[in-house]
Amino acid sequence: MQLQGKNYLGNEKSALGANTFYGINPSTGENLETAFTEAIEGEINIAVEKAEKAFKVYKNKSGAEKAAFLDVIADEILALGDALVQRACAETGLPEGRITGERGRTMGQMKLFATVLREGSWVDARIDEAIPDRQPLPRVDIRSMLRPLGPVAVFGASNFPLAFSVAGGDTASALAAGCPVVVKAHPAHPGTCELVAEAIVNAAKKTGMPDGVFSMLHGISHEVGTALVSHNGIHAVGFTGSLGGGRALFDAASRRANPIPVYAEMGSTNPVFILPGAMAEKGEELSQQLHGSFTLGVGQFCTNPGLVIAHESEETKSFKKSLTNLVEASNSSAMLTSGIHDAFDGGVKELSSQQGVEYLAKGADAGGNHGNANLFATEGKNFLSNTLLEEEVFGPSTLLVNTSDNSEMLEIARNLHGHLTATIHGTEEDLVNNKELIDILEEKVGRLLINGFPTGVEVCHAMVHGGPYPATTDSRSTSVGTKAIDRFARQVCYQNFPDALLPDELKQDNPLQIMRLVNGEKKR
Amino acid sequence: MQLQGKNYLGNEKSALGANTFYGINPSTGENLETAFTEAIEGEINIAVEKAEKAFKVYKNKSGAEKAAFLDVIADEILALGDALVQRACAETGLPEGRITGERGRTMGQMKLFATVLREGSWVDARIDEAIPDRQPLPRVDIRSMLRPLGPVAVFGASNFPLAFSVAGGDTASALAAGCPVVVKAHPAHPGTCELVAEAIVNAAKKTGMPDGVFSMLHGISHEVGTALVSHNGIHAVGFTGSLGGGRALFDAASRRANPIPVYAEMGSTNPVFILPGAMAEKGEELSQQLHGSFTLGVGQFCTNPGLVIAHESEETKSFKKSLTNLVEASNSSAMLTSGIHDAFDGGVKELSSQQGVEYLAKGADAGGNHGNANLFATEGKNFLSNTLLEEEVFGPSTLLVNTSDNSEMLEIARNLHGHLTATIHGTEEDLVNNKELIDILEEKVGRLLINGFPTGVEVCHAMVHGGPYPATTDSRSTSVGTKAIDRFARQVCYQNFPDALLPDELKQDNPLQIMRLVNGEKKR
Repeated sequence: MQLQGKNYLGNEKSALGANTFYGINPSTGENLETAFTEAIEGEINIAVEKAEKAFKVYKNKSGAEKAAFLDVIADEILALGDALVQRACAETGLPEGRITGERGRTMGQMKLFATVLREGSWVDARIDEAIPDRQPLPRVDIRSMLRPLGPVAVFGASNFPLAFSVAGGDTASALAAGCPVVVKAHPAHPGTCELVAEAIVNAAKKTGMPDGVFSMLHGISHEVGTALVSHNGIHAVGFTGSLGGGRALFDAASRRANPIPVYAEMGSTNPVFILPGAMAEKGEELSQQLHGSFTLGVGQFCTNPGLVIAHESEETKSFKKSLTNLVEASNSSAMLTSGIHDAFDGGVKELSSQQGVEYLAKGADAGGNHGNANLFATEGKNFLSNTLLEEEVFGPSTLLVNTSDNSEMLEIARNLHGHLTATIHGTEEDLVNNKELIDILEEKVGRLLINGFPTGVEVCHAMVHGGPYPATTDSRSTSVGTKAIDRFARQVCYQNFPDALLPDELKQDNPLQIMRLVNGEKKR
Repeated sequence: MQLQGKNYLGNEKSALGANTFYGINPSTGENLETAFTEAIEGEINIAVEKAEKAFKVYKNKSGAEKAAFLDVIADEILALGDALVQRACAETGLPEGRITGERGRTMGQMKLFATVLREGSWVDARIDEAIPDRQPLPRVDIRSMLRPLGPVAVFGASNFPLAFSVAGGDTASALAAGCPVVVKAHPAHPGTCELVAEAIVNAAKKTGMPDGVFSMLHGISHEVGTALVSHNGIHAVGFTGSLGGGRALFDAASRRANPIPVYAEMGSTNPVFILPGAMAEKGEELSQQLHGSFTLGVGQFCTNPGLVIAHESEETKSFKKSLTNLVEASNSSAMLTSGIHDAFDGGVKELSSQQGVEYLAKGADAGGNHGNANLFATEGKNFLSNTLLEEEVFGPSTLLVNTSDNSEMLEIARNLHGHLTATIHGTEEDLVNNKELIDILEEKVGRLLINGFPTGVEVCHAMVHGGPYPATTDSRSTSVGTKAIDRFARQVCYQNFPDALLPDELKQDNPLQIMRLVNGEKKR
């Protein structure tokens, strides 16, 4: 397939604007073929109007019909073959193995939501049957279930060109909920976006979905995104990216005459607490695992462990030494974009200039857009006195915090702002002795890990990829896993409806055989 | 019990401020006994700090323990006896039967949440078990469940001095979720608030709940509420009241460095569509039921039907005539406050001055704070051209909209903003012929009724008392019914946890026997 660089207004391609840009190979800095045309206001309006029109049809598709659509999207992505893999590698500098793995994850995500739709119980069907002879007043029949919000705007991330982009978790969960999607393509991988958009449009056609169920707009400026989020026809927003970007969209959405929910996942520093027993038992092994985790993918993961807290001790000194050696022996790789590289360089410089921060080690830097590993250390009391030390440096950097005792460690935990994850390494005895630490950290994060590392977010039913602000703008949500579908639906109540007019999910004889809450009791 | 007019900072009473105010009898305009002291900043801070401290303990109380607390709150409210009923009647002008009924509803709400807690499945427990031999990477054990957000600020409504006030649905659902509550008492019934606060504090003491699990602050200015919502220790807000008040709190919460969810239920006009068959079959009966519904409680309900849409016809003329007669024969009663009465008067004047609006009838007005029934009519095309005609006039007023045909009726439905409810009256044939109307209205409201009236909101599992903006600031939520508990919780994920450290809800052998999603399958 030849790239055209156009916007997708539903099934139609359009390039009316004058602003164009190119995908860039971050390893070479060179422009890749095909100019992409930024969407103009008129195109944004058409995309949203088509989504609103498509919603009238799409919201009433059955779970099985939507599931077929999602399954075919996965198939169509696979059918793009090597062209997709090569373009994604060229635009991101990520190795082929990573891209094929991410393609599998993206397809798996679509298929997992398809199974949720076929099973059907996700709609939280609730039925309170009439009680005509109740005193003093009869109760009428009252039923409710989750229904889709309406068209959703999705903003992909640069660091997952497939799994958190055009056909990523936000798109999959919004489509699963019954919401048309308008994607703002990420300008760091526009060609990858176009290929995946084509796959989704093909899948929509093949499965009889309405024109407008999916659109995609290009834009390198902020205007396209802001116009999209401010459009009256958009009912919710999914975003993965920086704190600045996510907060700007949240603010724009909150200022609307009719505010809408914004699910912005904005990353975090993912503190790792290593307790004394674990440090003594496996400090060397932990240093290797931590190094692997924080340098994985040139550190470009939201769940990158950027903060490690452990008591000062001989064992911690050995751990630090081992980590120092590993960092110094690290090779560098190209980062995703020159912008990310510049921000990483700036973050490293800022961190190294902070009072009381020791620059322990850095890995080799091959120049260009390469991001090299960086290791810092500071004392607990210094960390507590400088809030900047908790902020994310997006890239392969981590800060070791030496604590003097348990009370200082607990104080640090208590003072943390929101993060996606927190991790505790400990022996059985460590954990029993540190229940308070677990209890505090539970309030700070979406996911709490014991004896693991936060990178590698499993796509499953129980996953929470979210957390209190500033990890996200909505701590009640997850952007990974099947619970992500809840973000794009609201409970609608049907009172005294004739059975024939009820959605199948709420009909008296439960034709879909889903789990329902009937007069307070869960049953099929 | 002698009223003291003080703030409750947890179990301590405090009145450090200089600003005082009185409860007022709306029928007589006279001050009632006891001066109430507005909370000052220092008191607000103490209340929130106590709530934060109490949260550490309260969040880990079992479902059974929290249920016992809620049950005893209900008992303690009943134990207040006649003193509560008399004070509430004096402060609101509502008749005794209404207050005792509302007391029953308030107690029933507490007890319903207690049953939800004892049953336990509301936490949405999810378990994905480890798959150690999965290729290419093993899956670790991942579990998640809903956990409380933290201290919640609750703003009661004037029109339900018990059921939507200090111990109302917001407080009940927040306490049920595991969140301490700081109530901003409504200045229209401060004595009623104090009595109920005393009941909650007594219940907390009797059931061993931590000091600070409940606080209540008085305030007649906006400062107290704004300071409360802006406090870093508050994690969510429940509000019932006006659009202006709700939006101001939403804006304050969205502007915070760390934004928090605001569940503001701000009322609506609750459109009622009467289809031709129903109008022909029972126009007279509908006019009586409509009159009963929109004048109930002097029209001071969020679900008051303030908009009635029907085709112009001979039958509609008869309906209108019957309604006109009923309105003209209506008696007036005192409204809740002089402020509400003034706003009602202003709303009626504004509506009557709109172009194309006919002032069909008004009921007797006994003067003072009395609110008299008002009936207006306009043409469909006039309604479509003037957005002001859709706005709520809080009180016994309704506007009849004459439509010329189905397409105009659908156009009106399509142009509606968000409402709490919409109602359709129709014969079986009407309904079959008007599926599109149902389909459109489903997008506009939280609750859709057929052949009923929206006043009278059942407290049950399937109820949705919510709806798209401006009915609420969060269309995904309900403030009535057991699903209200979800507003105050977020999913937290526990990865690779030893069984002993997991909450009981997630332990491998399911000790609480709750319904869980285990590897994608719902089971106990």
